[in-house]
Amino acid sequence: MEEDNLKNLIKRLSKLPGLGPRSAQRAALFLIKNKEKDMLPLSKALYDVAHYYKPCVQCNNLTESDKCSICDDPRRHQNRLCVVEDISDLWAIERSGVFQGKYFVLGGNLNIMDGRGPSELGIDKLVKYVSLMCDTHTSNEIILATSATVEGQTTAHYIAERLQEFSIIISRLAHGVPVGGELNYLDDGTLALAMKARTPVG
Amino acid sequence: MEEDNLKNLIKRLSKLPGLGPRSAQRAALFLIKNKEKDMLPLSKALYDVAHYYKPCVQCNNLTESDKCSICDDPRRHQNRLCVVEDISDLWAIERSGVFQGKYFVLGGNLNIMDGRGPSELGIDKLVKYVSLMCDTHTSNEIILATSATVEGQTTAHYIAERLQEFSIIISRLAHGVPVGGELNYLDDGTLALAMKARTPVG
Repeated sequence: MEEDNLKNLIKRLSKLPGLGPRSAQRAALFLIKNKEKDMLPLSKALYDVAHYYKPCVQCNNLTESDKCSICDDPRRHQNRLCVVEDISDLWAIERSGVFQGKYFVLGGNLNIMDGRGPSELGIDKLVKYVSLMCDTHTSNEIILATSATVEGQTTAHYIAERLQEFSIIISRLAHGVPVGGELNYLDDGTLALAMKARTPVG
Repeated sequence: MEEDNLKNLIKRLSKLPGLGPRSAQRAALFLIKNKEKDMLPLSKALYDVAHYYKPCVQCNNLTESDKCSICDDPRRHQNRLCVVEDISDLWAIERSGVFQGKYFVLGGNLNIMDGRGPSELGIDKLVKYVSLMCDTHTSNEIILATSATVEGQTTAHYIAERLQEFSIIISRLAHGVPVGGELNYLDDGTLALAMKARTPVG
């Protein structure tokens, strides 16, 4: 039916998260119909990002230079560091606009089954980063914003232990009822934590 | 947050049907993590298909040569032509394996509002194709497999009228209850057509 190059394109598109074989066909046809406007620019964009992006030497965020724009920004708080698992988590926090400090991207969480130990996550690099922070700034705070999963919490725990030698505040994101969330759809664990961490009104 | 090239890639990915802004971010990160294995090959596949694929001179199917593999296949019935709106319809019929003739891809349906008239769909080309078929083969049949929408049926009607000068059988796909379909979820139109076209049992 489809010939080889086209089959190859559809197979490659169908590997993208969010696209299955059928929607990959649809995407391929959409692109073929818009060759100049969409297909060739997408090919170039993929090539450019693949060639020019690398991890930031300081925080592992993606960047085209050595340091990412967040690490390079002197207006951001130099004494607050938010540790996240993935770049998408960094993007989510940036979207919320609630954090004005620096980041450190682990690139995953501790998971011995999947072969991700402390060295794979570059936790030594994080420790060095924090050590440098303590040398140059005062009242430092590390926010452990790993996932609220078993692996994420294990990772946070491990990092907290490794950072005990420094006189810094170590915090983690609060657990509780999500805004707009209905109680009867909430899992028991979250409800229990929200109840425990209840705050006085008024 | 993301820098320019990366923003551009995410924007381009989010234009694909089936991907939104959030899943485009996820897809971009997936690709960046698999640069050599997925990102560069996808870039190349897009480039190759954009450069080497063009419409088949005979049926408008996609091909790397002048004629597509279906038009070029001497084992397929030369006297049966299935007219479809889009290449994805051709793929769907090929997947079913139920048709062994040739195709003609219109590239859409008649829709004056969207500026698609008979010349945009290349109906003159279709008429010439059918004329050539009548000259070289006997007992020709044209199957109008356009969509069961108002536009699709208008298109089928128009084509049937244009082909009346030829002594050919013109047929269209049967309407009815889809296999596995439950009656109470079926729309009234389909149900009425299925009732009208009922077939004797045994």
